[in-house]
Amino acid sequence: MVSTRILQLPYSKVENPRFLKPECDVHTCKPITKPPDLIHSVFPPPGCRYVSKAAPQAQVEFDFSGPSMKTAVPGPRSQNMSLSQNVGAINFFCNYEESRGNYLVDVDGNRMLDIYTQISSIPIGYNHPALLKLMSNPNNLSTLVNRPALGILPPENFPDKLTESLLSMSPSGMTRVQTMACGSCSNENAFKAMFIWYRNKERGHNTPSEEDLSSCMVNQAPGCPDLSILSFMGAFHGRTMGCLATTHSKAIHKLDVPSFDWPIAPFPRLQYPLEEFSRENAQEEARCLEEVEDLIVKWRQKGKPVAGIVIEPIQAEGGDNHASPDFFKSLRNIARKHGCAFHVDEVQTGGGATGKMWAHEHWGMDDPADIVSFSKKLLTGGYYHRDELQPYRIFNTWMGDPSKNLILAEVLNVIRRENLLEEVTRSGKALLNGLYDLQAQYPGMLSRARGQGTFCAIDICDDATRNSILLKARDKGVLLGGCGDRSIRFRPSLVFKEYHVHIFLNIFNEVLAQHK
Amino acid sequence: MVSTRILQLPYSKVENPRFLKPECDVHTCKPITKPPDLIHSVFPPPGCRYVSKAAPQAQVEFDFSGPSMKTAVPGPRSQNMSLSQNVGAINFFCNYEESRGNYLVDVDGNRMLDIYTQISSIPIGYNHPALLKLMSNPNNLSTLVNRPALGILPPENFPDKLTESLLSMSPSGMTRVQTMACGSCSNENAFKAMFIWYRNKERGHNTPSEEDLSSCMVNQAPGCPDLSILSFMGAFHGRTMGCLATTHSKAIHKLDVPSFDWPIAPFPRLQYPLEEFSRENAQEEARCLEEVEDLIVKWRQKGKPVAGIVIEPIQAEGGDNHASPDFFKSLRNIARKHGCAFHVDEVQTGGGATGKMWAHEHWGMDDPADIVSFSKKLLTGGYYHRDELQPYRIFNTWMGDPSKNLILAEVLNVIRRENLLEEVTRSGKALLNGLYDLQAQYPGMLSRARGQGTFCAIDICDDATRNSILLKARDKGVLLGGCGDRSIRFRPSLVFKEYHVHIFLNIFNEVLAQHK
Repeated sequence: MVSTRILQLPYSKVENPRFLKPECDVHTCKPITKPPDLIHSVFPPPGCRYVSKAAPQAQVEFDFSGPSMKTAVPGPRSQNMSLSQNVGAINFFCNYEESRGNYLVDVDGNRMLDIYTQISSIPIGYNHPALLKLMSNPNNLSTLVNRPALGILPPENFPDKLTESLLSMSPSGMTRVQTMACGSCSNENAFKAMFIWYRNKERGHNTPSEEDLSSCMVNQAPGCPDLSILSFMGAFHGRTMGCLATTHSKAIHKLDVPSFDWPIAPFPRLQYPLEEFSRENAQEEARCLEEVEDLIVKWRQKGKPVAGIVIEPIQAEGGDNHASPDFFKSLRNIARKHGCAFHVDEVQTGGGATGKMWAHEHWGMDDPADIVSFSKKLLTGGYYHRDELQPYRIFNTWMGDPSKNLILAEVLNVIRRENLLEEVTRSGKALLNGLYDLQAQYPGMLSRARGQGTFCAIDICDDATRNSILLKARDKGVLLGGCGDRSIRFRPSLVFKEYHVHIFLNIFNEVLAQHK
Repeated sequence: MVSTRILQLPYSKVENPRFLKPECDVHTCKPITKPPDLIHSVFPPPGCRYVSKAAPQAQVEFDFSGPSMKTAVPGPRSQNMSLSQNVGAINFFCNYEESRGNYLVDVDGNRMLDIYTQISSIPIGYNHPALLKLMSNPNNLSTLVNRPALGILPPENFPDKLTESLLSMSPSGMTRVQTMACGSCSNENAFKAMFIWYRNKERGHNTPSEEDLSSCMVNQAPGCPDLSILSFMGAFHGRTMGCLATTHSKAIHKLDVPSFDWPIAPFPRLQYPLEEFSRENAQEEARCLEEVEDLIVKWRQKGKPVAGIVIEPIQAEGGDNHASPDFFKSLRNIARKHGCAFHVDEVQTGGGATGKMWAHEHWGMDDPADIVSFSKKLLTGGYYHRDELQPYRIFNTWMGDPSKNLILAEVLNVIRRENLLEEVTRSGKALLNGLYDLQAQYPGMLSRARGQGTFCAIDICDDATRNSILLKARDKGVLLGGCGDRSIRFRPSLVFKEYHVHIFLNIFNEVLAQHK
């Protein structure tokens, strides 16, 4: 069945969004007639077999109705711009004022459906009216211009803003949270909290010896003890030096940087769909768990005890590798058995994209972790921790940024008011089913479709084809990201609805058809 | 001479500053009659010998006219507030809406002259009208709500904002800058840039071997080489694990955290005033420089070559330790001679407090460093670097925050428009002269007054007295910070004028007189 629904959608662009007043009611903005450029980009090419059924668009949103491409990407304006910063990785320059909802607009006027969302860090789309309104409120000006040293002089409303935002979504078993400026700092400080906890446990009290105090000043044991963090092959936990010692996704991240001799366990390489390979996958997971225990014992014997285990609920950067709830439950038990802290890194998985606020909620545990770190969609970095991981020695100048907590509190209001986690679950099903269909249609090109909520991925036959597909999709108005050796990862924001899924599937199908 | 000037100042509080409209002209705000509580706090107590001469207040500012204390600090409201974050270090809760200029207001209505400024991170005081105006401009809303992944998708105006802000104040010899989210991340990435540069130099080209690529994935050499960074005793470069390996100011920062076996050189322990001890100080500096060279040789022999040297122009956290321009020139030459990169950490010294935008400008060198890192008063973290320290592999999700660059650009406008660097030089002289006077008056209690611009410090006879003085000064309406074992550091913002110096000196004198 050929979808004509998308083609009939009005071009619901809010006039002059650059000066969009938060007071203005976006629902009253007049739809204007859409020029035909949109139609091309979502129309399946002749001879294409797969055509996605479009879900009805429920309401006129603050979103555009589809991609609109004027040039190849990067277009001439982007190419003429230069930056004295690192330019090696720049894709193109953006017009964030004109971007809205799921659509990122570039400086050449190209409007792309954004399924990568600034490396998975935009929670509710671009220029959400609720956020524009919030930021226009003169009561919030002071928070924007007076950044405090939160650890010593917090603002009056900070406890309330924490309660409204981060504490309203605390992982099970955790009532304490520590904000930080970014994901790497969150993990660095979570590691430190685990080391301090471990040493206090070893000492039997919190009072360091004179030798501890003097030796640490010159980087030597016992003050700077030879402890380790166990991580997994394929993991990504950040790029500062402590985090980097637990990151094993791409050589280019680690090359030339000194590191620690810390144990690295295999992460299960599962077969997908998970439910069809449960026996094989259980075996693979058992193998990895056994290796974890072996490494803990071996590193203890080496005199470098494992103070903590760090793991992502879904390895993201490393290729969207999943593991079962049973795997994580067993790992949690192994950590407990060996006296290691258990740190779940939800920097990329946290914030709703899996259909729950935290990916670890899918494990169904009351006591999932000792530490859960976050950043990206949460807008501020930080970590939750169990009471016994005392935070007293975790400190820096800013320790986060209250202006980000302010925005996060409103993001959470929007998520609740608009039932976005349910929407994510619905969109995610449509997306994964669409990927299954495409995978069946292009078996030589696509494999291993997988995902939870909209946090989905699919493998491409090889790296070169993957990269070529990413660029072709971009030229047709869909922004995607790669991960691992040859995967494409889908990281839309939480306002990515079923009809966006179908816009994407049609364009993706067109790209794949041309590649065959 | 008893100063009556301060007592006559009108109470120039802008009415209802919480809703201060940026369009409103603060110069037209009516002075209202000041209740007598202000008078007490700046009036010298009977029997006090030192009384500072107050400079005339040039104009009615967006500032208050003096401290105003209603309770001891923390007051009852602060004490009743709680926070699920780390509470160990919290001084009190603040009312940032009511704070203005040099005055921080707490939730109990106490108004304190702030000479610590959020650990030296507030550039032009609280709620500067120019910043309130900037943040109210609807054109800037998009920057506040759409935080990009700067390394791949920068906003259209980002090159201009960089040119207006960071690049307009580039250190000599540097035309490239990389923004980061905070000070620690800035130093971590600066270290990585130096390691990468060093390894490329060792290889003679930029192409890693297969062995480099495979070994780095498991944290082993040659991919993760055994390189080191040379740092100094007393240094503070941040609290993430790489930075922490170069930080040696307080044991409590480092205790229980694994570290690297990197060389640590002595930082000169100079005698003050510097000009009176030039011969002794030159000898001390020569001793330290000799040790630096010895360590570089020794660590090369150990198989852990020194890729870079990191140093603060004034050791801040470690006790406001100064060294001469000649020391830094010689150190720069030693770095060059031994093929080490030279990294000047201006996280605390940068941004104008020394009377120049960068403290290293006082050295008078054309080529002062290979890397200069910054944060705090610059509002964004980051580092400048020479071209040959290629940034290609320096990357993370946010890589800074354009909303901070926006504010920084306006801060720089204010600094230039109001000639704040000249003001800092003038206030700094008044402050240091006042400290010399007090030191002469209280020789058993005070010593080693020192400083550059308003970046000043003085030593107190012992730690307990220092801490007691800090608390007593706070209760009288002056916020100060400690550093080192027994120093008080002065870190006012750049709008700290001569008359603020005299308000401070009078109160400080009162505190000291009561302590005698």
